[in-house]
Amino acid sequence: MTRRWNGWGDDGIVGKVPGGAISQLESLVGPGRPTPDATLADVVDTLPAGRLPDHPLVSAGAEDRIRHSRGQSLGDWVALRSASLGRVPDGVGRPSSSAEVRELLGYAGEVGATVVPYGGGTTVVGGLSPSDLGPPHGSDPPVLVVDLERLAGLRAFDPASGLASFGAGVTGPALESALKAHGRMLGHEPQSWEYSTLGGWVATRSSGQRSLGFGRIEALFAGGRLEAPAGTLDLPTYPASAAGPDLRQVVLGSEGRLGIVTEATVRTVPIPEYQRTLALFVPDWGRAMEILLELAGARLPLAMVRMSTQDETRTTLAMAGRRRRLGLAMRWVGLRGGGGDPCLLLLGLAGQTRIAEATAGLASKIVRHHGGVPAPDAFGRQWDAGRYLQPYLRNTLWEAGYAVDTLESATDWTRAPTLAAALVQTLNAGLDGENERAHAFAHLSHVYSSGTSIYVTYIFRRSPRPEGTYRRWLTLKTAASRTIVEHGGTISHQHGVGRDHAPYLAVEKGELGMAALRDLAARFDPDGLMDPEVLLGGTGRPVPAAESEGGT
Amino acid sequence: MTRRWNGWGDDGIVGKVPGGAISQLESLVGPGRPTPDATLADVVDTLPAGRLPDHPLVSAGAEDRIRHSRGQSLGDWVALRSASLGRVPDGVGRPSSSAEVRELLGYAGEVGATVVPYGGGTTVVGGLSPSDLGPPHGSDPPVLVVDLERLAGLRAFDPASGLASFGAGVTGPALESALKAHGRMLGHEPQSWEYSTLGGWVATRSSGQRSLGFGRIEALFAGGRLEAPAGTLDLPTYPASAAGPDLRQVVLGSEGRLGIVTEATVRTVPIPEYQRTLALFVPDWGRAMEILLELAGARLPLAMVRMSTQDETRTTLAMAGRRRRLGLAMRWVGLRGGGGDPCLLLLGLAGQTRIAEATAGLASKIVRHHGGVPAPDAFGRQWDAGRYLQPYLRNTLWEAGYAVDTLESATDWTRAPTLAAALVQTLNAGLDGENERAHAFAHLSHVYSSGTSIYVTYIFRRSPRPEGTYRRWLTLKTAASRTIVEHGGTISHQHGVGRDHAPYLAVEKGELGMAALRDLAARFDPDGLMDPEVLLGGTGRPVPAAESEGGT
Repeated sequence: MTRRWNGWGDDGIVGKVPGGAISQLESLVGPGRPTPDATLADVVDTLPAGRLPDHPLVSAGAEDRIRHSRGQSLGDWVALRSASLGRVPDGVGRPSSSAEVRELLGYAGEVGATVVPYGGGTTVVGGLSPSDLGPPHGSDPPVLVVDLERLAGLRAFDPASGLASFGAGVTGPALESALKAHGRMLGHEPQSWEYSTLGGWVATRSSGQRSLGFGRIEALFAGGRLEAPAGTLDLPTYPASAAGPDLRQVVLGSEGRLGIVTEATVRTVPIPEYQRTLALFVPDWGRAMEILLELAGARLPLAMVRMSTQDETRTTLAMAGRRRRLGLAMRWVGLRGGGGDPCLLLLGLAGQTRIAEATAGLASKIVRHHGGVPAPDAFGRQWDAGRYLQPYLRNTLWEAGYAVDTLESATDWTRAPTLAAALVQTLNAGLDGENERAHAFAHLSHVYSSGTSIYVTYIFRRSPRPEGTYRRWLTLKTAASRTIVEHGGTISHQHGVGRDHAPYLAVEKGELGMAALRDLAARFDPDGLMDPEVLLGGTGRPVPAAESEGGT
Repeated sequence: MTRRWNGWGDDGIVGKVPGGAISQLESLVGPGRPTPDATLADVVDTLPAGRLPDHPLVSAGAEDRIRHSRGQSLGDWVALRSASLGRVPDGVGRPSSSAEVRELLGYAGEVGATVVPYGGGTTVVGGLSPSDLGPPHGSDPPVLVVDLERLAGLRAFDPASGLASFGAGVTGPALESALKAHGRMLGHEPQSWEYSTLGGWVATRSSGQRSLGFGRIEALFAGGRLEAPAGTLDLPTYPASAAGPDLRQVVLGSEGRLGIVTEATVRTVPIPEYQRTLALFVPDWGRAMEILLELAGARLPLAMVRMSTQDETRTTLAMAGRRRRLGLAMRWVGLRGGGGDPCLLLLGLAGQTRIAEATAGLASKIVRHHGGVPAPDAFGRQWDAGRYLQPYLRNTLWEAGYAVDTLESATDWTRAPTLAAALVQTLNAGLDGENERAHAFAHLSHVYSSGTSIYVTYIFRRSPRPEGTYRRWLTLKTAASRTIVEHGGTISHQHGVGRDHAPYLAVEKGELGMAALRDLAARFDPDGLMDPEVLLGGTGRPVPAAESEGGT
């Protein structure tokens, strides 16, 4: 298994997009006109030499540097696939202990390098990019990436409390496999789970697909260690405390600006005796919202509530090659009194059988009351089995000439339907100025008593020129971010801020709040070693100069 | 209803301590030798004049100033009841809007006053005291208390999200009554609920008795407004966010050091169809711990798990005049195979009937498996009905010559039994140096998957001289605080830091963490107007000079 250097996942896995889905996409946004990608060799050839003095923990290999230069933001993809990487890290440090992290921080201080912590490299918000499209900034400080892959593995497990301490570089599968040996699990399952790391989850405040049942990372992160340029911050694992502001909550979401999370202790649970995903179809979006509000009010111990819009239901079933199944589903819903263009609802259950069954019964009753009907059992099982394969479709669609990106927010129930509709509308119409179309669709996947997350996928045609694709993306992303902010949503529910969302952060933190966050950064990192462009940078991605593209 | 000026609660309510309980106490710590308390008139007579210039929002009435001088810490009680108030506030401001809070902050800045925010005055950790025993510090800055009682009431209720915005001075009963009109509730029920305020809960990170089901205040506080000397911080009510560190979590626990919480929006829930407290008896403490660990691991949707030690079960039932009932209970337990000296376990249920009943069934099965037996139904009902009367016993015992105080911590399951035992032992033996005895007992009332809170009540004889009582208290409190810190507990699970716990805060926050908290205080309050002695002060209460007391 080799990690793909310029896109999602394992190089050996191909996401299959059925011909029918491509035809549907052609009719929605026009035929894709793919251009070839740069190869890794192309990038290696043009890579400027690293500028860091030798250090036994630091690699300066060209491929290593390139592979640590970018995340999975669409801006990152354009840069990688067009060999326009801009500034590339000058070296990759691989510490295997907190002490070695301190050593690398000291080294960075001595040589005046900017430090970029690296977990799984799965950021979709520009959390890694030392800069964007364009030539390397020769006069800027050298960049040292600190990859935590050697600082992984289970350090301690306490059976009484269920607390498990890991090196922060542990990935989702390695973490769950270590816990399984003790009959326990964490249950934190973001879409990036196969590659992303515990330290990355903490630093970006991630949310797993079943966070309703298992808790967001804020609830799971019991304590740990942050190595900062100014010193070490040890966070005790109290189950709860009234002793002043919670410093764990300051480290959560700090995105490397305060230092590097090197160890994290998590609250694990016994593997539940009952785990299942139920799929149901709901006649239309109006009734979908009624169901969600009622489910949210009922406070049932569900592990997941995930409702797709009619558009998303149609598109994702088509993408999964399930047009025939979709037809059957429509008929199934129709026969049971639902409409012909339903919303797919997934309900996750995890817990004691007796409670889970009572929960399923009460939840199904609410759904049925609003005209919903259960889908065939296979739907839920297949979602479970295939959920980590979905991002591979992004690779395949790119190669067919289409760019795919996602964005998300969260807001109160009162504002959520308007924000969701405005986002889809903004994105669909976002390229009107270039006579291009985009196709956007949404789901609400994290349901809280007071509100919900909104997750939007959008697809548009690549331009034959990378700058054109980049500009289209930035146009859409900017318009969507403004829509989020104008409708009272948070700029991110689960992806984080990085560089891409930094310009919008002040809207929700306020002037005083931003100043306080900058004070914290200055306290933990007085010399500004930690990548100053993420989180608080606020400058965002540069927009390439306008250009004529001759008929694209 | 008049609020008692020098102790707990409503002046018209007397906590009845049965004669049997007093005899038991006499045999445990010796006969009480009560001395008379100072009267309010005594204190008014000796009160120095206020030093604040006139302001239309500020009262300088003597009684008003005295009633806002202290909380409910035992140190506060000694000061009030011996007319040794030390520094008393110079005036009491009563703003009725955020704008008036800003006006008072501006006024305080102009006249160089220290600002002490005041909610319900129920702090038990010295959160209000501008100084302690001893003469007023004439050269210190004048003290302006800002009482939020006029900044209360429901501002907005959004039925879709269940979000309710209140002026932060709203008390528990007023808040629940306003929500009840909408068919909703908050369910945040600290022991101080009748008097404490929403703003106070937020500022001190409080925990209600049924927080397992309804959530600690951290989970309930959706957003709001902080008025700080440096400006206004508005906290949006997102259900969740990955956009950087959570500033709500910085305001939570800030104890007035960053400014004044003026408005708070909370996440309410529909009033559950099923609410009940079950009481059970468990044969002994060893089996009690087994039950708690199993309950914690089972992750059942319980609203409360509260286990008393054998000592506490015995003492509280005696205090409640239930020696006969206790005898019956013992026989009841004995007949059902339990021991003769059981632990009382309370289980709270709140939710949908079907889920609650399944939960009760599964929980009872765990309890029975370890030899526990259900108590008669009346036990649970009576606990519900009488739970806010318990603090009145403190008044009555004081008048009988006994001082009662409580303290608490939380830690991981691995450390909890040792810490609980060490605390009881430390307190019981804490006055050996003066040939006095104390009587301490504990319960575990907030049970988490990874650990538990530990709540200890301790009773000792008052000295005939207030300085003696104060010193006994400080001796016990100091020894217990050290024990908490040495055994890896947080210095507070639910009461906060105030002045009493400030000297121990650095143990859990670390040097870098304390510096970061001080930076935050400096950012929000650059001129140091907000009471600098709480939370971060770190100097603690002064110990009165040793003295000979001639045979006390």
